[in-house]
Amino acid sequence: MRMYDVILHKRNGGKLSDEQIRFFVDGYTKGGIPDYQASALCMAIYFRGMDAEETVTLTKCMAESGDMLDLSRFGDLSVDKHSTGGVGDKTTLIVAPVVAALGGKVTKMSGRGLGHTGGTVDKLEAIPGYRTTLSEEEFLCQAERIGVAVIGQSGNLTPADKKLYALRDVTATVDSIPLITSSIMSKKLAAGSHNIVLDVKYGSGAFMKTPQDAEILAKNMVDIGKGCGRSVAAVLSSMETPLGSNIGNALEIKEAVNVLKGKQRDDLYEVCVTLASRMISLVRHIDVTEAETLVKGAIDDGSAFEKMKEWVAAQGGDAESLEDFELLPSASVIYPFASPRDGFITGIDAQRVGDAAMILGAGRASKEDSIDPSAGIVLLKKPGDTVREGEVVARLHTCDVRRIPSALAAMNEAVRYGDEKPAETPLIYKIIT
Amino acid sequence: MRMYDVILHKRNGGKLSDEQIRFFVDGYTKGGIPDYQASALCMAIYFRGMDAEETVTLTKCMAESGDMLDLSRFGDLSVDKHSTGGVGDKTTLIVAPVVAALGGKVTKMSGRGLGHTGGTVDKLEAIPGYRTTLSEEEFLCQAERIGVAVIGQSGNLTPADKKLYALRDVTATVDSIPLITSSIMSKKLAAGSHNIVLDVKYGSGAFMKTPQDAEILAKNMVDIGKGCGRSVAAVLSSMETPLGSNIGNALEIKEAVNVLKGKQRDDLYEVCVTLASRMISLVRHIDVTEAETLVKGAIDDGSAFEKMKEWVAAQGGDAESLEDFELLPSASVIYPFASPRDGFITGIDAQRVGDAAMILGAGRASKEDSIDPSAGIVLLKKPGDTVREGEVVARLHTCDVRRIPSALAAMNEAVRYGDEKPAETPLIYKIIT
Repeated sequence: MRMYDVILHKRNGGKLSDEQIRFFVDGYTKGGIPDYQASALCMAIYFRGMDAEETVTLTKCMAESGDMLDLSRFGDLSVDKHSTGGVGDKTTLIVAPVVAALGGKVTKMSGRGLGHTGGTVDKLEAIPGYRTTLSEEEFLCQAERIGVAVIGQSGNLTPADKKLYALRDVTATVDSIPLITSSIMSKKLAAGSHNIVLDVKYGSGAFMKTPQDAEILAKNMVDIGKGCGRSVAAVLSSMETPLGSNIGNALEIKEAVNVLKGKQRDDLYEVCVTLASRMISLVRHIDVTEAETLVKGAIDDGSAFEKMKEWVAAQGGDAESLEDFELLPSASVIYPFASPRDGFITGIDAQRVGDAAMILGAGRASKEDSIDPSAGIVLLKKPGDTVREGEVVARLHTCDVRRIPSALAAMNEAVRYGDEKPAETPLIYKIIT
Repeated sequence: MRMYDVILHKRNGGKLSDEQIRFFVDGYTKGGIPDYQASALCMAIYFRGMDAEETVTLTKCMAESGDMLDLSRFGDLSVDKHSTGGVGDKTTLIVAPVVAALGGKVTKMSGRGLGHTGGTVDKLEAIPGYRTTLSEEEFLCQAERIGVAVIGQSGNLTPADKKLYALRDVTATVDSIPLITSSIMSKKLAAGSHNIVLDVKYGSGAFMKTPQDAEILAKNMVDIGKGCGRSVAAVLSSMETPLGSNIGNALEIKEAVNVLKGKQRDDLYEVCVTLASRMISLVRHIDVTEAETLVKGAIDDGSAFEKMKEWVAAQGGDAESLEDFELLPSASVIYPFASPRDGFITGIDAQRVGDAAMILGAGRASKEDSIDPSAGIVLLKKPGDTVREGEVVARLHTCDVRRIPSALAAMNEAVRYGDEKPAETPLIYKIIT
């Protein structure tokens, strides 16, 4: 078999065979197939697409390209949640302990963030003492004992995807539905969970700009996940505006605690309840309405928050900091961002708020940058709220006062005002099962 | 400017600016842009195409990527002929001296052949003593003095094209009209001739399989050549069947001599007269009918053949060998290929005859192979001829008798027979000016 013929076949609109896909993934991972042939194939796939059968095979081959976590000890209780990413997305911090409190086994290997704000691992590291590295056996034993363990990505999971994603990133071949699907779902397969709930975002702060595009991607991911033998559901939620009020690592830990303690019943609460209910419905084979009652109950009776403290303590973190926020990192500068006029907030652009948070030190512009765990933004207003001239709309947190002016400029672009209350748009667009 | 944005822009169907194209060609030639981005762009161009303006810019940038021959001393008398290649295509050997005898200045840097049969330079090397290497000044002075000089490719002409073609060849991005056009026309621009006649082949032995596809390519090349300030015409001719009767280097020299001596008035003669007439029409600014009379006259009065001898002698070749073929390399084995039946020859597949000639030693399977100048095939019959069982259809020439069986097998696949005379198809499909 020659890679040339694989490229030609796809370029001409043909369907790739299992053998051709395996030949490509194995050869590319091992280095026998050069980057320039792989990028030509990716571009041909961008134009010609792949059908469900091809995408399932590509997903499986990429999952099998490296280590695969064996979660068989959990039977069908293992459950994973994956978000396509957004600004202020701290759902994992809330959903994981809720689901664990209700009997699910949540084992997550999360990434660090690039751009916008930190990843889940960056957020957890804002908790003093939290260890993001565990041995595989420590990781699995903890999940067995308390139902949840979250660490950084380690080992050699899906090397094919790592190599291919880096190539796609520099050859304008990222936004191809079968390539996105196989990239995400191969990591989920290798991570081992039987049940998978996908949180597919759309809007300014998300990769997919419209709910229609997000729905196509979500359907594809659900189909491919099922084709690979997993139970999968997807929630489509809006990322026009940052989720919740806090953006930035320590700030998001605080907000997660507030939701788990039942103090915050906003858009963030709604998305978390929806995600956790879908996860519990899959894990316990129960109706989603029944699952939702259980999820809300675990928040109301405090068991979910207790589970978070147990989890943080198990990984070496100071659980006391979740009760006493003064033990968490805090910024030396807190600067108000005020409204220039009376009226309504008509929009808060998630992408631009993310940029402002990154400027303040909450995210990385390049892999080598370090993160300021205390930096970020707290939104006091959300779209639809009224505002008076000079009233504080948000507070900017940083340890470097020189960053304030350009962060304010980004916030100025992010927040839009008007004379009339904007039409409400649904937070959850659709659920795909 | 980033290469990523250039790829993305073309991928999304945009038109590349002059700056973007120059950035790509310069960066790729100098090594700043990696192969994997260049191949992704080529695949995007395959799907999205390029308009005339983009193709002109790409062609110019590639021409300017290396040395450019200065033929200004010839004014508008300089004329080049380019064939898209085929089996038994020895038209340069005939057309060049005819045009030189009529006042044109033909300076050709020709390639060596890969596959099928040799290139023009391989054919000329079958003449004892012929030097395919001249200094630039020797080359230009010879053309000034006798009107024709043909050498191998030397110096650093169109390095951008060399590098890009090698990449396209392994990434299934060769057959894109704007990429083929810019590859061919950039070499013609760098080679410097003011007038260019293109011989675009179609059929089994050619790159373009149908006359319609060849016409699209030819129109594009003529437009782009004009867009770059040259006078251009294209002749579309059939390559279903090998051109003329002889395939193989020394055998083709003999056949060229026969045409120049007026002894052979077949399909090869017709194509050569058509090409030379177009060249003379451009060079002398005369009507093509008038040019054709001059061309036929130069063959009939012996001046074209005299010019060939003068040319060969000027480059150190034994001109006597053109009068006495026993001085040319000859094969130790000449084996007959006979008809298995009575009837008509209905087809002789150019591609398969080319394969047979390569098996006999007339062509190279890889760049490193050496060529047997005496090896090849002489066709005694052409499509439309009657044949009797056991009658010789072709003779196979080689110095290695072990190659005969597989060459015979290829010939068996090449020649088709029937009970009825096949319909005649035109040799010249169209002329584009």
